[in-house]
Amino acid sequence: MDHEKYMKIAIDEAEKGRGWTNPNPIVGAVIVKDGQIISKGYHKRYGDLHAERNAINECKENLEGATLYVTLEPCCHYGKTPPCTDAIIENKIGTVVIGSNDPNPLVAGKGIELLREHGIKVISEVLKAECDSINEIFFHYIITKTPYVVMKYAMTADGKIATYTGASKWITGEKAREHVHQSRHHYAAIMVGIQTVIEDNPMLNCRRMSSSSNKNEEIISNNPIRIICDTNLRTPLNSNCIKTANYIETMIATSCNDVKIQKPYIESGCKIICVEKKGDHINLEQLMQRLGELKIDSILLEGGADLNFSALQAGIVNKVQAYIAPKIFGGKASKTPVGGVGVEIPDEAVLLKNQKITLLENDILIEWEVDNVYRNR
Amino acid sequence: MDHEKYMKIAIDEAEKGRGWTNPNPIVGAVIVKDGQIISKGYHKRYGDLHAERNAINECKENLEGATLYVTLEPCCHYGKTPPCTDAIIENKIGTVVIGSNDPNPLVAGKGIELLREHGIKVISEVLKAECDSINEIFFHYIITKTPYVVMKYAMTADGKIATYTGASKWITGEKAREHVHQSRHHYAAIMVGIQTVIEDNPMLNCRRMSSSSNKNEEIISNNPIRIICDTNLRTPLNSNCIKTANYIETMIATSCNDVKIQKPYIESGCKIICVEKKGDHINLEQLMQRLGELKIDSILLEGGADLNFSALQAGIVNKVQAYIAPKIFGGKASKTPVGGVGVEIPDEAVLLKNQKITLLENDILIEWEVDNVYRNR
Repeated sequence: MDHEKYMKIAIDEAEKGRGWTNPNPIVGAVIVKDGQIISKGYHKRYGDLHAERNAINECKENLEGATLYVTLEPCCHYGKTPPCTDAIIENKIGTVVIGSNDPNPLVAGKGIELLREHGIKVISEVLKAECDSINEIFFHYIITKTPYVVMKYAMTADGKIATYTGASKWITGEKAREHVHQSRHHYAAIMVGIQTVIEDNPMLNCRRMSSSSNKNEEIISNNPIRIICDTNLRTPLNSNCIKTANYIETMIATSCNDVKIQKPYIESGCKIICVEKKGDHINLEQLMQRLGELKIDSILLEGGADLNFSALQAGIVNKVQAYIAPKIFGGKASKTPVGGVGVEIPDEAVLLKNQKITLLENDILIEWEVDNVYRNR
Repeated sequence: MDHEKYMKIAIDEAEKGRGWTNPNPIVGAVIVKDGQIISKGYHKRYGDLHAERNAINECKENLEGATLYVTLEPCCHYGKTPPCTDAIIENKIGTVVIGSNDPNPLVAGKGIELLREHGIKVISEVLKAECDSINEIFFHYIITKTPYVVMKYAMTADGKIATYTGASKWITGEKAREHVHQSRHHYAAIMVGIQTVIEDNPMLNCRRMSSSSNKNEEIISNNPIRIICDTNLRTPLNSNCIKTANYIETMIATSCNDVKIQKPYIESGCKIICVEKKGDHINLEQLMQRLGELKIDSILLEGGADLNFSALQAGIVNKVQAYIAPKIFGGKASKTPVGGVGVEIPDEAVLLKNQKITLLENDILIEWEVDNVYRNR
């Protein structure tokens, strides 16, 4: 069906903006007239023009009677840019085909209503599931006001993230590691526990090649914010994250209120986020509220094992990404991706659903949504 | 291509015999004349007629000039049944299309040669890879004279085979568990460690429904042999395996030579296999030699964690089957599928290859071949 064909192209357009629009959605648009695509556009960066306006502005032809395909219901209110509905009406576009409805309750359905009042034919919910799925972060954030959290780990076929000696370089192959670096770019922040900083001393930056025309240009300008969960504020001041905090935004979430202890971190360029303690560690639900207020719409949680279990227990995890390597470490004492105490019986397990499998050379990426994410809230 | 089309049908025929022909291969045959399939057959059970003879005997039509498709090179020697090449020649079949070459060095190529000498056209290696893969057990066994060992485990998305309390019922869903019971039927034996017998007290039988016409008839007649690795001969005499040893063949592999200790097991119907000790446990390579001599061509290794690691270390594992359930247990102390000491550094990992992914409702089965199986031999 033609509507679906053009909507797929609009989705491809939308994807070009991934990682640059947070906390806005990614959106793509295609304009078709007399069976020909006469323009395309996407939302390029937070604060910039929306996809519809980009497609309209780019078009050299007369738009009267054309059909606009757009992955998300056009806005009809003034935000950082003027309403897209105005541009559609002014240019006498005849039909608007929409994928997702706007999840923002202030806007939902109003854009469609306004277009219809102006005699424009509106066809909605074309490839809705696909259009919804490209914006799972945006939809989650706008409803809950907390970040969408993706727990990521790389393990062997027997569930180990390191050998018994703690060695973990490398579990997965190059393509999977490149995939991790690319996916880091899709999230507003990367979060790790203090133990990971002490043991691995990671940079947590986003080393990836551009997918645009300059194939060899490494993009370093869009690093996600680094968040370290450090209940008692003992991150080593000479760790890579702290040493580079002046040029890659770094936050430390802690229950330590002592300004003397906080001072050297602040002087190094870190932002301290104080949250209450819950049991032995920081209150993660409260942290998510605070990060949501700071417009952080998404977090890639990269462990370690104990923080992963605490996060699952707190019900803040939305998605799990398991990279599985074709090798076996064995070892009763070898580390596994989720530690802590664990659940007592299988019926108490955190349930996952909607698996998605991606092959990355010899490694396998399995992604699941967390099923009972709100259970403990 | 027609040759491949008919060979696929012959492969489907062969599969009907799976689990019943050990240590013979599974083989299927299709006879085509004037573009019509006029007969089909498969090797039904060890000792019975071969696939080619079954297809020929079943056929009501004149076979002169017909084309025979067979997944494995026809035999030309007297075994338990007369040579299939004789039947092909007598019936004046015009063309024989073959999948796998016979891996038995005594026979390889001789069947083809004999047919050609009698003026029969032979086309070989049609869908060879597919035909080879359905008989990986047979090919391995005939070359090495030791069983093909498949290590199977069911784990959570975070690599746990039980919660920290040891509870493991259930990790996977019904369809995956049914799949395990079906697959048990494909192997000559099931092997477990003493710890698994003590902790889980399993039956290790083959509860599966018939795939034949009598859909509701449970097949209990073809249980694989049970093998317990029990270095010091301390399997509880009241365990399910020992109590049922009189009607399901049960072997205990041990380094205990004390006939007094062995006696009650033998009286219960068990067979004792004495092998040397290697380190703390029985010499698994030696055990494989012994089992091969006993015509056991294949073993499903069902744990536990320490036996799994010993088996990988000994280089006796050919394939890994990991059933992965969409749930997370967590737990630093929860059991993982492969225990023991483990490898020291990632470069020492046991490497896997040729992944095959099967979806079983919400569970995922990943199968790999072990890459460096002969490394430690």
